Amino acid sequence: MERIEHRACFGGWQDVYRHHSAVLDCEMNFAVYLPPQAANERCPVLYWLSGLTCTEQNFITKAGAQRYAAEHGIILVAPDTSPRGDAVPDAEGYDLGKGAGFYVDATQAPWSRHYRMYSYVVDELPALIEANFPASDARAISGHSMGGHGALTIALKNPGRYRSVSAFSPIVAPSQVPWGKKAFAAYLGEDREAWRRYDTVELVKSATEKLPLLVDQGDADEFLATQLQPELLHAACESAGHPLTLRMQRGYDHSYYFIASCIGDHIAHHARALR
Amino acid sequence: MERIEHRACFGGWQDVYRHHSAVLDCEMNFAVYLPPQAANERCPVLYWLSGLTCTEQNFITKAGAQRYAAEHGIILVAPDTSPRGDAVPDAEGYDLGKGAGFYVDATQAPWSRHYRMYSYVVDELPALIEANFPASDARAISGHSMGGHGALTIALKNPGRYRSVSAFSPIVAPSQVPWGKKAFAAYLGEDREAWRRYDTVELVKSATEKLPLLVDQGDADEFLATQLQPELLHAACESAGHPLTLRMQRGYDHSYYFIASCIGDHIAHHARALR
Repeated sequence: MERIEHRACFGGWQDVYRHHSAVLDCEMNFAVYLPPQAANERCPVLYWLSGLTCTEQNFITKAGAQRYAAEHGIILVAPDTSPRGDAVPDAEGYDLGKGAGFYVDATQAPWSRHYRMYSYVVDELPALIEANFPASDARAISGHSMGGHGALTIALKNPGRYRSVSAFSPIVAPSQVPWGKKAFAAYLGEDREAWRRYDTVELVKSATEKLPLLVDQGDADEFLATQLQPELLHAACESAGHPLTLRMQRGYDHSYYFIASCIGDHIAHHARALR
Repeated sequence: MERIEHRACFGGWQDVYRHHSAVLDCEMNFAVYLPPQAANERCPVLYWLSGLTCTEQNFITKAGAQRYAAEHGIILVAPDTSPRGDAVPDAEGYDLGKGAGFYVDATQAPWSRHYRMYSYVVDELPALIEANFPASDARAISGHSMGGHGALTIALKNPGRYRSVSAFSPIVAPSQVPWGKKAFAAYLGEDREAWRRYDTVELVKSATEKLPLLVDQGDADEFLATQLQPELLHAACESAGHPLTLRMQRGYDHSYYFIASCIGDHIAHHARALR
């Protein structure tokens, strides 16, 4: 593991590391923000999963989250969104292949060797963080768009592993929308049962742990009707009796300006669960 | 004037406009953040001048300043750093030509036709802002690196025009350091008297208005010794009796992580003078 960026930020350190991921079989970057409190104590960790086209850089440069993490004493960990490198297969378009791992473990060729972001985020990365940084085992997870899908599905599939979960503009029903159908067909094949295991509105139906879901969605989001459809999550949670706070935020779009505007509230939400 | 970006942000709007600049003789972009208060009243304006290689985008995507502007009811205006377009001359290297206007009015060919960022920032842009937005004539100015140089020199050269001024990691003595010497030789020629009229440590010597200077400088800044040399500003202000708050910030480098960490304090400083 090599530290490739190290920058003072809100009294702590915004770092970026490169390591060889055994799960993904490639070199990967991830970002870690260490709040000032981490100099003296183990701190809880909020994992942030980014959306399509992002790397580990987008969240750390644009969201302004470090201020709130420093206030609450929370470590922020932001992985990349897919395996990387010349040996990793890719596809035309921004919504499949590199930058579009969709937080699943692919089962289909040529994707299945490297595209295992689910296991990377759930197992390999937390083990690395908890072994090498002043991190406690108190974990929370959040993300945006494809990463909101990742955060919600990962929390629902791993009861007890995360103390809290939230999402911005998540893809809540990938099995039903163009982004998800394209990615799942490629990564998981045509078996719709496999798709359901990575679909928030499907997972809510059988969730044993009723971890409350916090979701913010801009009502001026350009992908609202075609790709996001938060009403499907609302209906699924209502039907299953799963606790959901879904906030439609007036005027906001799909950009990091929306995330920056609301990330403080999400981090406060996670801090209440984590500390 | 055409609005090319319009995004909800902290209860206000982060917009970007394109217009034809008569002063620069080209199409220019500038960013305007309108805080929530601007929906109901005229608000004071903080002009932000960015550093080498930047456009109007860097500050609005990376500094996290909108949160504080929304708290204090301040409009943020961030111009580009040079004239733009195919007709505008450029040079090899990131520190001359496009992205490196240095906030001077060039007098030398081929630069003098377009490279007039001083007059653009002092006259044309504020006139446009005050005529077309809910802006009062209460102005403040700040900036980073080359833009810190711009903010300090523009405030010192225009007594009464700005209520407050601050800078991050400014080039305080461009006549004495490589970045400044290269740019001033090209834009202003070899007449050192012309250089002194755009040099903070020179301008402080004869400033009639003792506008206090607030300067933050990271002590891990990679350009500290070669290009920035804040000790020259400290000595000049002490010698001239000019009020200066120069804060060496431990561990911080030249990046936007430094700006993000301290911009809240700068905006509070400007708010005290503006409102």
